[in-house]
Amino acid sequence: MKNLSKQELYEVKSELEAKYNRYKSLGLKLDMSRGNPCKEQLDISEPMLSVLKTGEDCIDAFGFDCRNYGILDGIPEAKALFSELMNTASTDEIIIGGNSSLNMMYDNIVRAMIFGVYGGEQPWSKCDKIKFICPVPGYDRHFKICESLGIEMISVPLLPDGPDMDMVEKLVSEDESIKGMWCVPKYSNPSGVTYSNETVLRFAKLKPKAKDFRVFWDNAYSLHDISDRRDILLNVLEEAKKYGNGDMIYKFMSTSKVSFPGAGVAAMAASKNNINFIKKIMGVQTIGSDKLNQLRHVRYFKDAEGVREQMHRHAEIIKPRFAVLIYILEKEIPDVATWSNPNGGYFVSLTVPDGCAKRVVSLMKEAGVTMTPAGSTFPYGVDPKDNNIRIAPTNPPLAELQTAAEILCVCVRLAAVEKYLSEKE
Amino acid sequence: MKNLSKQELYEVKSELEAKYNRYKSLGLKLDMSRGNPCKEQLDISEPMLSVLKTGEDCIDAFGFDCRNYGILDGIPEAKALFSELMNTASTDEIIIGGNSSLNMMYDNIVRAMIFGVYGGEQPWSKCDKIKFICPVPGYDRHFKICESLGIEMISVPLLPDGPDMDMVEKLVSEDESIKGMWCVPKYSNPSGVTYSNETVLRFAKLKPKAKDFRVFWDNAYSLHDISDRRDILLNVLEEAKKYGNGDMIYKFMSTSKVSFPGAGVAAMAASKNNINFIKKIMGVQTIGSDKLNQLRHVRYFKDAEGVREQMHRHAEIIKPRFAVLIYILEKEIPDVATWSNPNGGYFVSLTVPDGCAKRVVSLMKEAGVTMTPAGSTFPYGVDPKDNNIRIAPTNPPLAELQTAAEILCVCVRLAAVEKYLSEKE
Repeated sequence: MKNLSKQELYEVKSELEAKYNRYKSLGLKLDMSRGNPCKEQLDISEPMLSVLKTGEDCIDAFGFDCRNYGILDGIPEAKALFSELMNTASTDEIIIGGNSSLNMMYDNIVRAMIFGVYGGEQPWSKCDKIKFICPVPGYDRHFKICESLGIEMISVPLLPDGPDMDMVEKLVSEDESIKGMWCVPKYSNPSGVTYSNETVLRFAKLKPKAKDFRVFWDNAYSLHDISDRRDILLNVLEEAKKYGNGDMIYKFMSTSKVSFPGAGVAAMAASKNNINFIKKIMGVQTIGSDKLNQLRHVRYFKDAEGVREQMHRHAEIIKPRFAVLIYILEKEIPDVATWSNPNGGYFVSLTVPDGCAKRVVSLMKEAGVTMTPAGSTFPYGVDPKDNNIRIAPTNPPLAELQTAAEILCVCVRLAAVEKYLSEKE
Repeated sequence: MKNLSKQELYEVKSELEAKYNRYKSLGLKLDMSRGNPCKEQLDISEPMLSVLKTGEDCIDAFGFDCRNYGILDGIPEAKALFSELMNTASTDEIIIGGNSSLNMMYDNIVRAMIFGVYGGEQPWSKCDKIKFICPVPGYDRHFKICESLGIEMISVPLLPDGPDMDMVEKLVSEDESIKGMWCVPKYSNPSGVTYSNETVLRFAKLKPKAKDFRVFWDNAYSLHDISDRRDILLNVLEEAKKYGNGDMIYKFMSTSKVSFPGAGVAAMAASKNNINFIKKIMGVQTIGSDKLNQLRHVRYFKDAEGVREQMHRHAEIIKPRFAVLIYILEKEIPDVATWSNPNGGYFVSLTVPDGCAKRVVSLMKEAGVTMTPAGSTFPYGVDPKDNNIRIAPTNPPLAELQTAAEILCVCVRLAAVEKYLSEKE
């Protein structure tokens, strides 16, 4: 399309505008902005709602009444389940949180700001400047935490096998103000990339200048295959231990996209040193998370195998959504855009011609389809090339998703034509 | 007993020791350290466990699916319920939290440390020193938060109608480093005192030197009458508004001792200015609290009247426990100790002869009864007179409570005799 004459581009543009206006006149109201599971996915966990019915049901395997106060870091059965899911060496390396792993990550950073981390010499807030490495494109909520807390973000490209580790190694070994790094190591948000074994090993062997450097390993999609081509991720905590870096890793996960997004259970895994350090401070902060909800999860899933079985059912539901989206993209815009075709996770990452992402999202909005704001996959909301759009295909019903994808393709073409025309002026 | 001769005291002592040793030989294992509801109280809320059974049950009154992501500050129905319970002027003055009001208080202080408060000029952490006023005796977990965060605590006596307001007014008007004050305004922990109307009005009219001063109004026992003599507490937020102090008050409550201690719902109420300021920062921290648990509470209680009915049932269960305890204290130790006889709340505050509290708690421990550590009702765990003991009578079964109270009386007498004897040496 790029090679068309000005006249031809004008013709294409007016055709696209006509199409676009027809879609616009439908008065749609679709939301593809967030990775929200769809109703059918939420229905899978229905039996979990009533797995605790009586007072007797609320007594855990060790005789503890989960209705009452007590137990800061999670009931033993929940710690056992998450230990299995997170492949920790022991249940002493786990803390069970509330319904939000994001909240656990946030609290860990705030804690480090105020108290420092295990083995650190001072609170992060006493440093002149704190920086985090942010693989891009990445998860907007990670970046918002840094922005809100005044932590400077350094973008590092996310390559097909993980972050650019040459850059990461150089940065952390030279700059003591770099205290952390965000990672979504499996089915990364938004690009779907899974870190290769080599990448994980390079993490394990990092030699950060800052002794209080921490990797925030947000393994949000650890169980979220959507294809039979399953990505395998190495256990970074165990690898890091081999190189004396066991205290460098904070791992996180949650059942938000396993059971209920609003009422799941989050967990973090880390070395015993880290866990003991954190628990001491946490004991002042809270009475501990909702133990009945932990017990609901334990009773419903039984074990890690139960969770994995549930994930198959999720995959069956969202697989067609990804397939339809990819099919339409392939059919409609192979000449103007590229996109990820991930083996798991919740997103398709779309790369449109440079300078067109904002325009596409704005055209979509006008046509009644809310997308993740362009730029939000980059620190400070600024995509330097303005070419990345995150598509979240899981929530809308299949028919609506199809319509939305078709509109998206029209918008991408239209934005591209506008760009090519402006280049010919 | 104080006026006995040395010889007589020795005789009393050996009688008490014999009694004490008989109790000790029973090998008891009782816990009266925390204000934990008893099993019968937990059983009241059993129907709440299965009030949400199907996916359809999880849709709120406005059509929102509470299983999914979304809604930061609480579902509208929960905000309405807590607005009623907290007597707020509107549901815009409420944030619904997770299962721990302590966690909400902690987060508010940490937020103030990092970001300051609405209308404040800088984060609290930028000040050379921060101080909180702490009415004593008070709640150990409040004091632990200050201690952990390096906030200096200034003790102010809690008088029968509330904190010594002459001192409070003087302190806050003179010292700009005083940024906060802890209050348990109704059935105070541990003394059971409820602030008088005059005290509340004096709070409403405070003229703090620090423009970013906040009163942490922890109304944990707002609904927790155990007697027909019910204390009435004035609405401090509404009163403060009349004097331009609406932004000075943070109110907190939870259903921890209404539904389930480990799985209740907490809430905070404050001016719209405060709430909007807090929500902006909270939106970066979390996806919002567990909405299904909010919905469970709303469906089970229906409205504030439903909560109040439930509180009658709690009162019926714990009333005899308080009665037995007070009866035994009156019978056994009226000559050596005094105690509170509160109209509500969870504690009896026992005043033993000066210098005896630690000894009593240690004697109790040896006899198999765990009490709240002596001193913990004071900042830094130091009771200057070493005479205050917090008794939590709700959790043990009635027969065990009776035994524990009898042992307590023996221990109090024994510690007193030891003291009188040492004074005669």
